Amino acid sequence: MNKVNLTEKLARIDQPWSPTIVGELNGQYVKLARFEGEYVWHGHETEDELFYVVSGRLNIELRDRTIELAPGEFFIVPHGVEHKPVALPKADVLLFEPAGTINTGNATPNQYTRKPEQLDRL
Amino acid sequence: MNKVNLTEKLARIDQPWSPTIVGELNGQYVKLARFEGEYVWHGHETEDELFYVVSGRLNIELRDRTIELAPGEFFIVPHGVEHKPVALPKADVLLFEPAGTINTGNATPNQYTRKPEQLDRL
Repeated sequence: MNKVNLTEKLARIDQPWSPTIVGELNGQYVKLARFEGEYVWHGHETEDELFYVVSGRLNIELRDRTIELAPGEFFIVPHGVEHKPVALPKADVLLFEPAGTINTGNATPNQYTRKPEQLDRL
Repeated sequence: MNKVNLTEKLARIDQPWSPTIVGELNGQYVKLARFEGEYVWHGHETEDELFYVVSGRLNIELRDRTIELAPGEFFIVPHGVEHKPVALPKADVLLFEPAGTINTGNATPNQYTRKPEQLDRL
């Protein structure tokens, strides 16, 4: 039951591609993450995922087009849609998705993979 | 499947206390609203509700204390907790809550009440 200041929380993130939990409601997590460079192609079978850019530039590559996001913009990737986030070169991002979501979705587990129970809470 | 720019959407809101739907995911709505002055005391029996301040100042009065929000800050009101938003004097606010949420919750329906099916989509 405390407010969350995005700038304060982001200042405590020390590594890229490692989402941290900053809020929980209705079975969903609010997460913050620093994106740097290219991520991996993946999709989520059942979870829709919101990317809101706090600072920096973020492209969400889809198989048929690219969504270019600036600060103050968000995009919702529907479940089942493959996507690849690419930060240019860095972006601070707020995510909103079901609590059970694995960050690399249906991709073969890799160096970026964090299961929900492995996530830090800031 | 389009990105959402908060500033562009907010420029199209012409009346206070009238949430508009700007995104939908996992059974939840992303809404934008302009708050002006005092709202009404209410609670939501089953829905948690996130208030994120885009611009302006917003107080979330609870029965035992007040949460003061500036731009870049959010607060989650858990279900069952009575609250009264007060903008000082105006605030642009992003809300995140289950799609079925009624904006005045368990308060007696009043001039502010908007049922989900009455909300505009921007």
